[in-house]
Amino acid sequence: MLTPPNETNAGGLAQALLAPRSVAIVGQSNDAGKTAGRPLKYLRQAGYAGRIYPVNGRRETVLGERAWPSLAALPEVPEHAYIVTGTQDAVEAVQDCGRLGVKIATVLADGFTEAGIAGAARVAQLRDVTARTGLRIVGPSSLGVVNLRAKVMLTANAAFDEHPLPAGRTFAASHSGGMIGALLSRGLARGVDFAGLISVGNEVDLSLGEICAATLDDPAIEGYMLFLESLRHADTLRAFALAAARCSKPILAYKLGRSFEARELAVSHTGALAGEDDVAAAFLADCGIARVDTLDGLIEGLLLLGRVPVRARVAQGARPPQVGVVTTTAGGATMVVDPLAVRGVRIEPPGATTLARLAAAGIAVKPARLIDLTLAGTRYESMKAALDIIVTAPEFDLVLAVVGSSARFHPDLAVKPIIDCAGSAKPLAAFLVPDAPAALAALSRAGVPNFRTPEACADAIAAALNRRAPRLLAAPARSAGAGDGAGWLDELETDALLDRLGIAHAPAVAIDAHGARTPALPFPYPVAVKALAAGIAHKTDVGAIVLGVLDDEALLAAIRQIRASVAERQPGTTVVRVLVQPMISGLGEVLIGYRVDRDVGPLVMAAAGGIFTEIDRDRSLRMAPVDLATAHEMISEVRALTRLAGYRGLPAGDLAALAQAIVALSRLAVMDGPAVLEAEINPLIVRPAGLGVVAVDTLVKLMV
Amino acid sequence: MLTPPNETNAGGLAQALLAPRSVAIVGQSNDAGKTAGRPLKYLRQAGYAGRIYPVNGRRETVLGERAWPSLAALPEVPEHAYIVTGTQDAVEAVQDCGRLGVKIATVLADGFTEAGIAGAARVAQLRDVTARTGLRIVGPSSLGVVNLRAKVMLTANAAFDEHPLPAGRTFAASHSGGMIGALLSRGLARGVDFAGLISVGNEVDLSLGEICAATLDDPAIEGYMLFLESLRHADTLRAFALAAARCSKPILAYKLGRSFEARELAVSHTGALAGEDDVAAAFLADCGIARVDTLDGLIEGLLLLGRVPVRARVAQGARPPQVGVVTTTAGGATMVVDPLAVRGVRIEPPGATTLARLAAAGIAVKPARLIDLTLAGTRYESMKAALDIIVTAPEFDLVLAVVGSSARFHPDLAVKPIIDCAGSAKPLAAFLVPDAPAALAALSRAGVPNFRTPEACADAIAAALNRRAPRLLAAPARSAGAGDGAGWLDELETDALLDRLGIAHAPAVAIDAHGARTPALPFPYPVAVKALAAGIAHKTDVGAIVLGVLDDEALLAAIRQIRASVAERQPGTTVVRVLVQPMISGLGEVLIGYRVDRDVGPLVMAAAGGIFTEIDRDRSLRMAPVDLATAHEMISEVRALTRLAGYRGLPAGDLAALAQAIVALSRLAVMDGPAVLEAEINPLIVRPAGLGVVAVDTLVKLMV
Repeated sequence: MLTPPNETNAGGLAQALLAPRSVAIVGQSNDAGKTAGRPLKYLRQAGYAGRIYPVNGRRETVLGERAWPSLAALPEVPEHAYIVTGTQDAVEAVQDCGRLGVKIATVLADGFTEAGIAGAARVAQLRDVTARTGLRIVGPSSLGVVNLRAKVMLTANAAFDEHPLPAGRTFAASHSGGMIGALLSRGLARGVDFAGLISVGNEVDLSLGEICAATLDDPAIEGYMLFLESLRHADTLRAFALAAARCSKPILAYKLGRSFEARELAVSHTGALAGEDDVAAAFLADCGIARVDTLDGLIEGLLLLGRVPVRARVAQGARPPQVGVVTTTAGGATMVVDPLAVRGVRIEPPGATTLARLAAAGIAVKPARLIDLTLAGTRYESMKAALDIIVTAPEFDLVLAVVGSSARFHPDLAVKPIIDCAGSAKPLAAFLVPDAPAALAALSRAGVPNFRTPEACADAIAAALNRRAPRLLAAPARSAGAGDGAGWLDELETDALLDRLGIAHAPAVAIDAHGARTPALPFPYPVAVKALAAGIAHKTDVGAIVLGVLDDEALLAAIRQIRASVAERQPGTTVVRVLVQPMISGLGEVLIGYRVDRDVGPLVMAAAGGIFTEIDRDRSLRMAPVDLATAHEMISEVRALTRLAGYRGLPAGDLAALAQAIVALSRLAVMDGPAVLEAEINPLIVRPAGLGVVAVDTLVKLMV
Repeated sequence: MLTPPNETNAGGLAQALLAPRSVAIVGQSNDAGKTAGRPLKYLRQAGYAGRIYPVNGRRETVLGERAWPSLAALPEVPEHAYIVTGTQDAVEAVQDCGRLGVKIATVLADGFTEAGIAGAARVAQLRDVTARTGLRIVGPSSLGVVNLRAKVMLTANAAFDEHPLPAGRTFAASHSGGMIGALLSRGLARGVDFAGLISVGNEVDLSLGEICAATLDDPAIEGYMLFLESLRHADTLRAFALAAARCSKPILAYKLGRSFEARELAVSHTGALAGEDDVAAAFLADCGIARVDTLDGLIEGLLLLGRVPVRARVAQGARPPQVGVVTTTAGGATMVVDPLAVRGVRIEPPGATTLARLAAAGIAVKPARLIDLTLAGTRYESMKAALDIIVTAPEFDLVLAVVGSSARFHPDLAVKPIIDCAGSAKPLAAFLVPDAPAALAALSRAGVPNFRTPEACADAIAAALNRRAPRLLAAPARSAGAGDGAGWLDELETDALLDRLGIAHAPAVAIDAHGARTPALPFPYPVAVKALAAGIAHKTDVGAIVLGVLDDEALLAAIRQIRASVAERQPGTTVVRVLVQPMISGLGEVLIGYRVDRDVGPLVMAAAGGIFTEIDRDRSLRMAPVDLATAHEMISEVRALTRLAGYRGLPAGDLAALAQAIVALSRLAVMDGPAVLEAEINPLIVRPAGLGVVAVDTLVKLMV
């Protein structure tokens, strides 16, 4: 009954994972109040129609049903086993599953990736099983798998103890097991029902991306909600996102890790290293995955995301999306406008034509950014007439209706008009200022995206409007090797690489660091002198660089100083040659960098230059390679570079050349030749417009 | 029956405003569904025990009660009149109130401060009445005044159509009328009940601060919730905040206006100019008013604020507040930790003693930042034992308990232990990860501050921990005059002012701009040359400055150039003299500034120097004057100044001297002599530690 390893196709995977015809619960407890007692209780409560085999070697019965002594003793091989035992028993149960030909084993126990050396050894045991057999594993540390249509309740999460649970059209996947209960219950409270939910745990075999991808064929699933703690297995997440885009199924993600503390916690409780937050942001944006910052935004936002057309990747010159806001309460509406504007979303006042149409309909509004119906009064007729005009006004890409206190007891006045516009072609969202659960529920029933807090409303609108189509790569980009990288290029080798990329750099001569006199230089003084040695990452820190050297004598002194300083501060490195360059001046200094991130792959960065990049965190990141329009977008995102755009009468820098240099550097992701792990040009001197940019100091590290 | 103008004392004001024995509703409609029909309906529904006089000149009866033809026709002078007529009738009704001796008139109509010249004329009519009579006015644009204990329902807000409404211990005041309905209804949903709510409208007479201050004597009111759109009447808000601090009554504020767009909306719908957001933040912090960013944080946060002891104003060397987090779900807890850490709140891991106590109690936790009970299991005993230890551990100033899915159906496991710790001396807050309304309600009943979203939880905790005692001024600080200011000082006058303040400045010689030769200079070349002319605000912009002048000849050329450039770019200004200064170099350039803000009064600022302050918005603001500890705090808040603190082996700047200069400049707020409206030193050169700071260019504008 063994199938060849890892050849389960997506359809087969989804079926055994989410709609198995038979399930075993290994370690099922007789106490339904305990974690290990829940799965059987939930399956029976939901009315799962398949065959259920509780396995418990210590009891004849569990919860009044026959308990089987072992997986091997079952009358058939179950398709899916949920293993809810302790850690060591779980390893053995997985081995049994592999031996018997079980298709899916979902493992609850912890003690694997997050558990140091002993945990790593257990992970190796699990991987040995998947490599040898057809078994696929969810977890460990998985709180389970739920399919609400098929009544598959293979979960130990306490929030699923409820019947009946409605089946919906959203699929949720979470790194955190606790969160599937939060999504389910908070979704119920907001009229969001799920097709299925999965706690992916440590992803030692099946990754979140693979699992979600396996469900894409299911026409009943219309969108995805992801709760992410890391970007482990970013490759499969990206592949899923691209496939989802092809099916027009939106993906909305909440990702922990804005703060260092949260990233540290991800390590300690899942064993996954979480990268910096702007790397995650660049990756998710690159994949066309919308990202929210609030939990309510995740739960309430997917419906809206599905209504907002996906924007082209980079549309230079296209106008940014514009939101029109119609309201019965200016103060309440401003609570949404404020965080929206902070997120860079444009709140557009009605144009002259729209104002004229409103006036013709007898609706008095002041010409202002909000379409405020206070003067017109809170009446069905005025709200409906105003909405009819606003949802057909070409200046708006999305219409937000904000209703004040009347929404609580008189939804017929200003909420019903929104419901009656639910069919409009334009994306429409509603925020109700008072607590108005009945009106919110009515909006949900009518399919109008609606929000309980102003912050979630702004969060979801911004996420939906900022989403762009995923970037499609002509060739696969590089991924990081196993090791940390090694092999620094020296300055002459980096110059050769820059020549290949087409990035101008300062002329340079290498000279012997022990010579008694200096050769004639092909450029005039003053010059800069640097140790010519691969492996000195921060030349300033070890005194390996002297600037503004004025003549031959000073050059000799500078070389002596560099040799002594490096010998003292970086013992083991001997300076044999130095590099001499002319001093290059320009209007500003920029850092541009490239690196292959361990999780997400090649990235390109533009940042404030000099040694202060780290302090200011004033940088823009994208997945590499990028095109010219993206490079210009990056430049506009770095605050310090505003200074080079001709601010307050200052001469403008050659930002066109800077953009070209960013594009060129990002090509390392797809270029033939030695695989570069990291490259950093700092500073890249930006000269006045038309005069180009010049790389002055470049570090390049190759992959091992 | 006239009382002398404006002599109503606080007690009398509060009584007539919030507990009148008789009320008139001027303009009461016969249609309870209409705005003007609501007050009578609500008063009767609530069972208001005082005398009610509906006034409606066009009807014999309204809602089945006798309608009086006019205020003058009433059998007594009502204490409080709610005027719900249109704009013009409202002005006349206010005049009637003044004539008759009514104590309070609350005005619903708009058409006043936000309505241009016609509105200003109407405001003048209202102010004429208050100046001549004892009448005090709430509004206009007030949706009313509610006192839930006294059943005073003088409101036209649709969300109050509910009975019974519980009376609580929170008083809410709002610039937005719609928001009183939102606060009431959202409060009800979260177990937060109100003593009273008031929509203060345009504050043409009674300001929000005065109204709240009048309620401070009421022992039933324990705290204040403010919804602010501007800082109009900041003086009375400050006075209220100081008085509230003396009574230990906490104030929590939500203030619109983080974005330019929101500030613009405040102007268009209330007529109030809203200042920049960091000015508001500095003012509120200075007054000891805690500020939240989320609506739920406002509603759910006040209870917590009341539990957290107020920190001393500036406690140099005192450790920052530390939060301990105990949880049954790491992923769920991290949702709160992430925004908390982003807001700068320190999440402290348990210390060795605490870990030992946990171990002794048989509770297995890993030594990590979260006290994660996953290993210990979700049981009453382990949660209770852990909480008992954590709430008595000295390393924590506040304890946050985060409960996972069990909270939904089994609050006995991990929510009840929190309730059973409600009496602990340490501030305790709870966040429940799933939707768990019953458990939230139980926590509220037990008085444990609890939160429905992770964002509101983090928001409220940060607001409570960051609050400090209000600053007490020895002498009243300056307030801005009526006009825009005028009277720029010239460079020699500003130097004299800097001498008085004790801020070092560059030596300077004034020389004739038309001389054929230059006098001998008391310092060597190179020098800087500037036009000596009051009123050139941005010297660089008009070419009024030349740097790095090397000799006599170059100096003459520079003077010619400045004369020509100013003549061309700032016609009307003739350069008669120029100022010559030595070129001063240091480790960095800083801007320090002082201004008397129209709303909040004197402010002092530190910012990145040079001409780029405006781009980076990298600045720190405080109300002036400040002490040395505050000045150091400001320096630590400016990103660019990190560079001067000895970063990466760079020489450290004289930050002690910088702090002293900030303190000195801030003394303009209390110093005798000409009243300074604005002063800006840019750049202030920061020299190496021990060598001080030097003001190079200073602009000073006096008040008119």
